Amino acid sequence: MELKYKKVISEELEKLESSLALSVSSEIELATEVSNYIVNSGGKRIRPAICILVAKAFGYSGDDLIRLASSIELLHTATLIHDDVVDESQMRRGKESIQKKWDNAHGVLVGDFVYSKAFQLMASFDNPNIIRALANATNRISEGEVLQLSLKNQDQLTERQYFEIIDRKTAELFKVSSVTAGILSDCNESQLNSLAQFSTSLGIAFQIQDDILDYYGDENLTGKKVGKDYEEGKFTLPIIIALRNTDDENNKKILSLFRNNKKNQFSEVLEILEKVDTYEKMQNVFMSYAKDCMKELENVPKNHYRDALEDIVSNLGSRLS
Amino acid sequence: MELKYKKVISEELEKLESSLALSVSSEIELATEVSNYIVNSGGKRIRPAICILVAKAFGYSGDDLIRLASSIELLHTATLIHDDVVDESQMRRGKESIQKKWDNAHGVLVGDFVYSKAFQLMASFDNPNIIRALANATNRISEGEVLQLSLKNQDQLTERQYFEIIDRKTAELFKVSSVTAGILSDCNESQLNSLAQFSTSLGIAFQIQDDILDYYGDENLTGKKVGKDYEEGKFTLPIIIALRNTDDENNKKILSLFRNNKKNQFSEVLEILEKVDTYEKMQNVFMSYAKDCMKELENVPKNHYRDALEDIVSNLGSRLS
Repeated sequence: MELKYKKVISEELEKLESSLALSVSSEIELATEVSNYIVNSGGKRIRPAICILVAKAFGYSGDDLIRLASSIELLHTATLIHDDVVDESQMRRGKESIQKKWDNAHGVLVGDFVYSKAFQLMASFDNPNIIRALANATNRISEGEVLQLSLKNQDQLTERQYFEIIDRKTAELFKVSSVTAGILSDCNESQLNSLAQFSTSLGIAFQIQDDILDYYGDENLTGKKVGKDYEEGKFTLPIIIALRNTDDENNKKILSLFRNNKKNQFSEVLEILEKVDTYEKMQNVFMSYAKDCMKELENVPKNHYRDALEDIVSNLGSRLS
Repeated sequence: MELKYKKVISEELEKLESSLALSVSSEIELATEVSNYIVNSGGKRIRPAICILVAKAFGYSGDDLIRLASSIELLHTATLIHDDVVDESQMRRGKESIQKKWDNAHGVLVGDFVYSKAFQLMASFDNPNIIRALANATNRISEGEVLQLSLKNQDQLTERQYFEIIDRKTAELFKVSSVTAGILSDCNESQLNSLAQFSTSLGIAFQIQDDILDYYGDENLTGKKVGKDYEEGKFTLPIIIALRNTDDENNKKILSLFRNNKKNQFSEVLEILEKVDTYEKMQNVFMSYAKDCMKELENVPKNHYRDALEDIVSNLGSRLS
């Protein structure tokens, strides 16, 4: 089922694609080639879509919106490229990752190139508050990456640490997408606060859903291998919830499975998770954030752009990829 | 012998150090630790020094200068960190590189963190022309990196390609250091053009000198291994000049030495270079850029800040590290 937003802002999404392609085109052919490889690989454009929907919901009709949405998608793309280098990921959006298809050097340097293109777009705004919000978000995202790295060799991640990481790594960019759209649309302080709250909750809900899909998704639909987080020894919410709800024996078992990280033991992990209804508990956590999104959206003018935002939230729980 | 600028702007350089340390301090301890490791490793601060000297020469006395100089040094630092990942360099400024002391992931992510800190500083300026100049420079530098990567597997580099790469990778940051200082000091168009020309030539002269030192420097003074460019198969000006001046037989010999890249054959390369007076020819090229710097500096008000800039240029030819 297609989400509403794809119809409601179809024209803007088309302009976004042209703008992205134009933005990463460079005199340096290799830079264009490699960055186009990932820019054209069919991302969901959920962050720029939120940016566009929020601005439109508040009646924005100026020329800056597609540029803003593009800078946000490019920032996201640059982090994906560097993430794949750091995680040595083989696949991205159903294709070989840049570091796999080329090598680390291409990943690092083309990632930097895409960052620089995002910054050029950011720098083009006349309102310094937009530039500063984007620069601050870039910094918080990058701190989130380093925080995650610093906790990598810990035996386990606490719930607080988990939420600190996803707040920075995922929710921050959702937040700035929505808040800068609000600034562009001359929203007042209270509206901006609502937008920040809405999009932070949406980002967290989105990441929780991602973590659920990693354990319970359909590979053919997500394009991602099930159990990848476990294989990479990444502590995510399913494990944190399971650890909180199982007895000592199963706690030890989970931690030992993670420590030894045998790929063929993913089913054992799933078994323990099932015993304590981890899937249902995850859905409950997810729903509390989704509800918060809906509540905050009440402060956005009621029109078909807001409808499309509500549609994104209500379909997130059933998203397949 | 100490360069004049260290005395002339000693107060500003001290403030720069505090500003750099403050800029990379973060709630995320690992980010502070790793970025401080390189920020405190005794860089020459030549780019921020040029920025400060130019602004002071034109009488700037406001509060923005140290912040501007810091953003430029952080931008430079971020590129060094990523360069070391890409080149798998073991050493930087006489210490282990970040990727050697920690690993690739730390290099990529802390490099991104330092970039983001540079961007936050950039975003803090009220004059959009400063922000845009810095964002454009970031992009040109990053394109230079990708250009170099795209030419890596070529048999040889042409002189034109060599200059295109160093113009982007080195001269661009010298240029923006000087031009943004000029913008800050309300320079007119013609003064800005002179500053751009001066600092571009200085950047190129600086890089040529770096390439000379790689072949003819004293390891104990430079902190860099002699012959590193040859070992890494990097085509730099000494080789390009030698290829242009030797006969077919020696041309083939040089190219074959580069292709097979045997570390113990560096002395053979040096021998061929000596036959055609490569060192002297390099010095001539260097001198033409140094002279251009001096000519353009005549358009800067005559005071002890300009004297210090002239001193940097005239000492570059004899610099040891």
